[in-house]
Amino acid sequence: MPLVRIDLRRGKSPAYRNAICDGVYRALRETFNVPESDRFEIVSEHEPDNFVHPQNYLGIAYSDDLVIIQITVSDTRSREQKQALFARIAGLLTENPGLRKADVFINLIECKTENWSFGDGIAQYVATAS
Amino acid sequence: MPLVRIDLRRGKSPAYRNAICDGVYRALRETFNVPESDRFEIVSEHEPDNFVHPQNYLGIAYSDDLVIIQITVSDTRSREQKQALFARIAGLLTENPGLRKADVFINLIECKTENWSFGDGIAQYVATAS
Amino acid sequence: MPLVRIDLRRGKSPAYRNAICDGVYRALRETFNVPESDRFEIVSEHEPDNFVHPQNYLGIAYSDDLVIIQITVSDTRSREQKQALFARIAGLLTENPGLRKADVFINLIECKTENWSFGDGIAQYVATAS
Repeated sequence: MPLVRIDLRRGKSPAYRNAICDGVYRALRETFNVPESDRFEIVSEHEPDNFVHPQNYLGIAYSDDLVIIQITVSDTRSREQKQALFARIAGLLTENPGLRKADVFINLIECKTENWSFGDGIAQYVATAS
Repeated sequence: MPLVRIDLRRGKSPAYRNAICDGVYRALRETFNVPESDRFEIVSEHEPDNFVHPQNYLGIAYSDDLVIIQITVSDTRSREQKQALFARIAGLLTENPGLRKADVFINLIECKTENWSFGDGIAQYVATAS
Repeated sequence: MPLVRIDLRRGKSPAYRNAICDGVYRALRETFNVPESDRFEIVSEHEPDNFVHPQNYLGIAYSDDLVIIQITVSDTRSREQKQALFARIAGLLTENPGLRKADVFINLIECKTENWSFGDGIAQYVATAS
């Protein structure tokens, strides 16, 4: 059920962007118990002047490769799971496409499980009485 | 007050995209009691490699026409209203532009009523003492 | 920690868009006590048919210069701070790039402080026991 929005500067190859999508999905599978095939990811590429970030924040030095990952998920995960997710995404993206860990920005938006419809006009995560 | 983000693959006509916007707005009017003219909808079109989705999830088979609709709304609606919204959006988009029901993905982000400013620098939904 | 998404019609200069980013950041600094350099802003420009808004809502008359600003922030601010933020953003954007106050639409999405990772795979706002 996560809906993943990935924003970065324009100029990376399809393989590079695909590796980011793969890593985020795999990390969600491993740390958030996301089911197989529950993978919805939207990538937006930006010109530099439309993608504003600091050079440094909290001692973290960003490069032009910064990736901002915003994930909407159900509000069912613990703080420990969130920390595991952050670490796993950063670890996997370091491996492929080879990002610096500093360049992985992640934010989670939480919603109720009843707030999802995966198609057919139905709220699939709401238990039905029938 | 809903802020609607609609994401889909590039290649559809303005009329097609407009029909999606119309259907979502009409469904919000009918099921969420959204006032007339409360219509703010942002459409983003994507290349295939930037719009990642599974072939199947929860028994739902997606096509390349998948539309992902993410709506930020005040946290004042019941579960039943949400279910009615999902069904109505899917129903209307089936009529026009003729989407398959499976291809209508919807997610709701909820916020407090005080979190909106519709212009003029004012939080219009906060009751004023003056 | 705010993550700012700014959406507007295509056609404005880099200086114009930069002024919007500057104003939002400055208003967040002044009213939400956002630390220096905590500035992450993504601007998306749209064709007219992908940026749908009414001519009027709640007595506010919009022009084609409407800017929709959606800010994800930690859920630690009061209603009064939100009202101050809205007023300050609208005020600053009126000065530069010279927007009409009516054309400044703002929405806040709130999340827990534990929902942020600013890099390095760590949830920086979670107190560590070590």
